Amino acid sequence: MLACAATYRVFKSAAGAQSAESDPLHSWNDGPAKQAITKFVQTTTDQSSSSYVPHEERIATFDQDGTLWVEHPVYTQVIYCLDRVPVVVKEKAELAKVEPFKTVLSGDHEAIAKLTMADLLKIVAAAITGMSVEDYTTEIKKWLDTAKDSRWKRPYTELTYLPMIELLKYLRANGYRTYIVTGGGQDFVRVYAEEVYGIPPEQVVGTSVGISYGYDKNGRPFLTREPELLLNDDNAGKPEGIHLMIGRRPYAAFGNSIGDRQMLEYTKAGDGARLAMLVSHDDAQREYAYGPAQGLPDTKVGTFTQELYDEAKKGWLDCHQHEE
Amino acid sequence: MLACAATYRVFKSAAGAQSAESDPLHSWNDGPAKQAITKFVQTTTDQSSSSYVPHEERIATFDQDGTLWVEHPVYTQVIYCLDRVPVVVKEKAELAKVEPFKTVLSGDHEAIAKLTMADLLKIVAAAITGMSVEDYTTEIKKWLDTAKDSRWKRPYTELTYLPMIELLKYLRANGYRTYIVTGGGQDFVRVYAEEVYGIPPEQVVGTSVGISYGYDKNGRPFLTREPELLLNDDNAGKPEGIHLMIGRRPYAAFGNSIGDRQMLEYTKAGDGARLAMLVSHDDAQREYAYGPAQGLPDTKVGTFTQELYDEAKKGWLDCHQHEE
Repeated sequence: MLACAATYRVFKSAAGAQSAESDPLHSWNDGPAKQAITKFVQTTTDQSSSSYVPHEERIATFDQDGTLWVEHPVYTQVIYCLDRVPVVVKEKAELAKVEPFKTVLSGDHEAIAKLTMADLLKIVAAAITGMSVEDYTTEIKKWLDTAKDSRWKRPYTELTYLPMIELLKYLRANGYRTYIVTGGGQDFVRVYAEEVYGIPPEQVVGTSVGISYGYDKNGRPFLTREPELLLNDDNAGKPEGIHLMIGRRPYAAFGNSIGDRQMLEYTKAGDGARLAMLVSHDDAQREYAYGPAQGLPDTKVGTFTQELYDEAKKGWLDCHQHEE
Repeated sequence: MLACAATYRVFKSAAGAQSAESDPLHSWNDGPAKQAITKFVQTTTDQSSSSYVPHEERIATFDQDGTLWVEHPVYTQVIYCLDRVPVVVKEKAELAKVEPFKTVLSGDHEAIAKLTMADLLKIVAAAITGMSVEDYTTEIKKWLDTAKDSRWKRPYTELTYLPMIELLKYLRANGYRTYIVTGGGQDFVRVYAEEVYGIPPEQVVGTSVGISYGYDKNGRPFLTREPELLLNDDNAGKPEGIHLMIGRRPYAAFGNSIGDRQMLEYTKAGDGARLAMLVSHDDAQREYAYGPAQGLPDTKVGTFTQELYDEAKKGWLDCHQHEE
């Protein structure tokens, strides 16, 4: 079965999209990417095909950041964590004088942009652990209702890719269960995944902190988010997380960066028809142009995404016809 | 909503069960346990009820050993591991001279029965890790096809409780998704859960070892089971595992021992109508009589199950009426 690299060039302009509402993938141009998708779906859902996939095994997994919604210039979850710093400092006043919290509170954008990964991890740990799972959910909901992206002036939950939303719906309409498999926080994405993507909490696989069961002063049980990493759902952690949470190998997988490589490989290594695709970012007007499609480094993953893209072009994600 | 302790006394004899095939719970006597179940289902699926639960939130979780199938005199998974010892020793000859493998190979039932928990863990680690997830699944399937319980002379997969199978089906017929939440091995139970209980792999939450992604000599990716505990899905690990794997609080939960306590508490602590039930083993003819219902100690969990049973009787799992 075909498995090709998709690029933003395959997506029609918004005006063009209006003209073909009857097509479930009407934002996609009629190129090899769209053809690969429709051929995959036809082959795997046709009972007379030797590549037929029973309903219960129809699993499709999607990376989120950069695959379903915008990840530039900063992961949305990192922005959430930075925005949480004033609240964190209110609860723990001593942090106001300590780095990296001091820099974040200064509001100095240049200094904030220079924070190291170690600094960010300290902020993330303080912002997303040490609270009940309910409180965490409530805080994210509140933030999503008010926070806006600085370039697009819209809520983050509106910064999704229409063609990918169409693809989610098209696969579901054909009996596929769609999962998010994200390097981002599992419980973060769960807050909005149902509303934004139509993906329920139990179909979100992501990076997870430890959760501990305990009782409040009234003896009522509750779950606390602990400052320890339980699952790192990126790179090799993606197929590992898929096995843990789903227990089935996907038939289709979609990503955009080196962190998705193992998920795509694992998907393609299964028997029968499998589809593995890369989203490439080449539209500076309607989104951002970055990474290998532009000959530009991916600021997050350096040259590794280039390597993945080159492999896809060479045939690593190329046509793979099931022996019939 | 009612939440009561069920005992085997509530299950009709096989002869009685034949007479009411139109009743989805026809193996259950018309006692408080059955009434609690049907009332719970009616209340939570009636759109005009203030306790109505939307389809997507209808989650019911079931312990497996001693709740869905027989756990006496030894957990089936432990028997599998003991049966695997000759194969393990064939691959690693040096183990034949080392305890506890030496004792298992001796076939001396009395000596085997005296193995400590530490001994069993060594056997389990050798029997279920250090292989690919596919090989593990294949071995279990082969074993289940041939192994038989020594008392009942039947395959282990036939030693399920008919009333509980009826309950699984009844809940599913009413829109509930049924999950297994087991202290046993997640990948072990996944092998047969779909065929035996109608529960797909992604709805089995269990104790899990670490899984690592790698490549074979042909560059084909595969997942290896590592000798490290990733999730201990018993006691507090049950609600923690439920949060990780499902991300929703169950509306109904079923267990039989102290290892299920936190899952039952967590379920009952949610808003609205919740059902939490204990299976108690008091039928020595058709199964085994053990634990608190018999005034006998539960050989696996000592006096703790007695404590849970007493609490259930006192009202810990008693009537809980949602304020309407």
